Amino acid sequence: PPPPPPPPFQAEDGIRDNIPSLVGSEMCIRDRIKPHGSDELNPLFVYDTDKHEALSKEAETLPSLQLSSSAAGNAVMLGAGYYNPLTGFMNVADAIACADKMVTTDGIFFPVPVLNLTEKVEGFAVGDRIALRDPNVDGNPVLAVQTVTAIEDVSDEQMALMTDKVYRTADPEHPGVAAFNAQGQVAVSGPIEVLNFSYFQSEFPDTFRTAVEIRNEIQEHGWKKIVAFQTRNPMHRAHEELCKMAMEAVDADGCIIHMLLGKLKPGDIPAPVRDASIRKMADLYFPPNSVMITGYGFDMLYAGPREAVLHALFRQNMGATHFIIGRDHAGVGDYYGAFDAQTIFDDEVPAGALDIEIFNADHTAYSKKLNKVVMMRDVSDHTKEDFILLSGTAVREMLGNGKAPPPEFSRPEVAQILMDYYQSLN
Amino acid sequence: PPPPPPPPFQAEDGIRDNIPSLVGSEMCIRDRIKPHGSDELNPLFVYDTDKHEALSKEAETLPSLQLSSSAAGNAVMLGAGYYNPLTGFMNVADAIACADKMVTTDGIFFPVPVLNLTEKVEGFAVGDRIALRDPNVDGNPVLAVQTVTAIEDVSDEQMALMTDKVYRTADPEHPGVAAFNAQGQVAVSGPIEVLNFSYFQSEFPDTFRTAVEIRNEIQEHGWKKIVAFQTRNPMHRAHEELCKMAMEAVDADGCIIHMLLGKLKPGDIPAPVRDASIRKMADLYFPPNSVMITGYGFDMLYAGPREAVLHALFRQNMGATHFIIGRDHAGVGDYYGAFDAQTIFDDEVPAGALDIEIFNADHTAYSKKLNKVVMMRDVSDHTKEDFILLSGTAVREMLGNGKAPPPEFSRPEVAQILMDYYQSLN
Repeated sequence: PPPPPPPPFQAEDGIRDNIPSLVGSEMCIRDRIKPHGSDELNPLFVYDTDKHEALSKEAETLPSLQLSSSAAGNAVMLGAGYYNPLTGFMNVADAIACADKMVTTDGIFFPVPVLNLTEKVEGFAVGDRIALRDPNVDGNPVLAVQTVTAIEDVSDEQMALMTDKVYRTADPEHPGVAAFNAQGQVAVSGPIEVLNFSYFQSEFPDTFRTAVEIRNEIQEHGWKKIVAFQTRNPMHRAHEELCKMAMEAVDADGCIIHMLLGKLKPGDIPAPVRDASIRKMADLYFPPNSVMITGYGFDMLYAGPREAVLHALFRQNMGATHFIIGRDHAGVGDYYGAFDAQTIFDDEVPAGALDIEIFNADHTAYSKKLNKVVMMRDVSDHTKEDFILLSGTAVREMLGNGKAPPPEFSRPEVAQILMDYYQSLN
Repeated sequence: PPPPPPPPFQAEDGIRDNIPSLVGSEMCIRDRIKPHGSDELNPLFVYDTDKHEALSKEAETLPSLQLSSSAAGNAVMLGAGYYNPLTGFMNVADAIACADKMVTTDGIFFPVPVLNLTEKVEGFAVGDRIALRDPNVDGNPVLAVQTVTAIEDVSDEQMALMTDKVYRTADPEHPGVAAFNAQGQVAVSGPIEVLNFSYFQSEFPDTFRTAVEIRNEIQEHGWKKIVAFQTRNPMHRAHEELCKMAMEAVDADGCIIHMLLGKLKPGDIPAPVRDASIRKMADLYFPPNSVMITGYGFDMLYAGPREAVLHALFRQNMGATHFIIGRDHAGVGDYYGAFDAQTIFDDEVPAGALDIEIFNADHTAYSKKLNKVVMMRDVSDHTKEDFILLSGTAVREMLGNGKAPPPEFSRPEVAQILMDYYQSLN
């Protein structure tokens, strides 16, 4: 008979001395934060190549529905595992329940409705399978296939209830409310199978990541405690130090800079410039094996506190254990109080609904008195003049004139990348 | 005046004690292996979103050329930076020079021709811009835009010269030769701009990586010496230990398992099963922060030694410092000697042409005498009976019958994933 199998790590297996034991590795896997609502992440993207091909073929024979941009973004998030454990678009009862109490009729905690709203339904009925077409890609290719389990009219009162609960306003000027109401009032619900990740994957190939990928990469890095940081802009010292403060506070071994990818607004910095400036910061000012730079895509709701809860939920799904929420997180205008996106976790999110922990932050800035970046709430003796503060407009103007902001505000190597960009515009 | 800027890492910046100095980080960056042929990687994908959108729009107005599958794969490799410093498809003079002497007429070392061959040209001429359409995706979307700098007939003699030099045979049964000759004999050359990564990116979203991404991730991991391993199959203990032997031999801190993605042949293991089995092996049997699991896509040439040189070149472009080449690398049938893919680096690749180093390997297998996996050439006293050897067919049969191969051959956790798959087929 063959000799008994060797233990998983023998000395001769070693590529160095500090190889962990199998027990350690297994513990590491067991220690990973669970996805929201299930033991394993269940992304709705069709990974099996044969099934993918068959579904693509089937889709071409199905009735089509062109998605709203918002629903398309949600399909991407569902496909990528960020919205685990949802299996598709909610029906009206679930949507109302999530808007009202942040929980589906089946008891799944979810902080916002995830609806496929359209103006009218033609050419398909309940029970049919339909091809959901992407409004954000030329030629409107199929993004996902949906099995239609309900087609429901949403009343004006129901629309108003949802905007009131989710956005805390019915103001049609609120960009999230406007986008929500512009979709139509017919809800097409049912499970979906996702075929691609829209323009997020094709236009941001080096930055876009699914929640599956981020979980895989966390494992590859060997991290146990991971802080996620939301951004869509280059990072100056205040942001860099905020990430480091959060990492230190929770004793994290990893930080995931997780960028919201999407169509640019005039004046926005192009993705490659933003990415390069963030990578330069990470390369020079963070220890090796402590930062991962990634992106995801959906249409921002600007729903302030409710969106903050959604942000936390999908960071849990991607494997982060902690999420930074600062002042005015995901807000717009003056619809929300500066710390509403933090207090909602204490006041409204039921205990145990999410496993991810929130790192509540205030603004950070360089203190001339203390010669370091501080969190403003920690230095109650400071006045405005004690900080190095620059408006976004002032910073853009300096950069455009080839003048670097002071190094207390921007790392010189980061400023150089941004100056090169702004000067290339002239 | 504000105080002088602090040095990049002050104690107060620290998230832990072992933060490297800026000097260390800069050295780390300087230490990275350069791409082939240029100081910076120049991928041909259009990263700027505005330019991407403009190019996509322009493409719809341009004359179309449907690519061969092989040329489409090359466009993907060019887009992803793997073929740096090439800027597009070669003209015939360069192709012949690369086939003959592995160097372009401009002196760029490149081991194979990279041609856009077609049967005939209609609707465009030299100087035009054309839309290169993807033969491998439904609806044949535009993969890249080419500026046509030459349209040349390739003579039978030139085709024969290239197959003879690259494939070392003119046998039409050789799958690489057959694919090469089936494309046609008109070469459309010129620089390209790439819009997407074909089905490799859309169907393998969690595995496909560009060379840019892999360089970024190496930096994130903080690795300095990186061994790349080519595979398209699940990894058994022999492969696992081969990677570890290579890492130990070159004192590497990282191993990149780099999978060739592509259409399946009947009997192949689906990508998600293969990926899961490789990830399980890496999670359980490698130290944290030592493995990255990634994939790339093009149509394999089966060109043995020449393809091995190409494989090494694109691993250098993605930032690997060492590449494992075993017996029969990239070969097929009996066209090549078992070690031709190794000796070509000594006999034909000019010194200094590539910076990446080759780790030459022999087959590895579990030795019953020594109770460990060994490289066969290192145990000249062994006979076949001293190893645990199983044919692919035997392994598949065992797995299909729910019987795990011995643990000396397959890690039990890996075997379980493969058994689950094979049994699901019954």
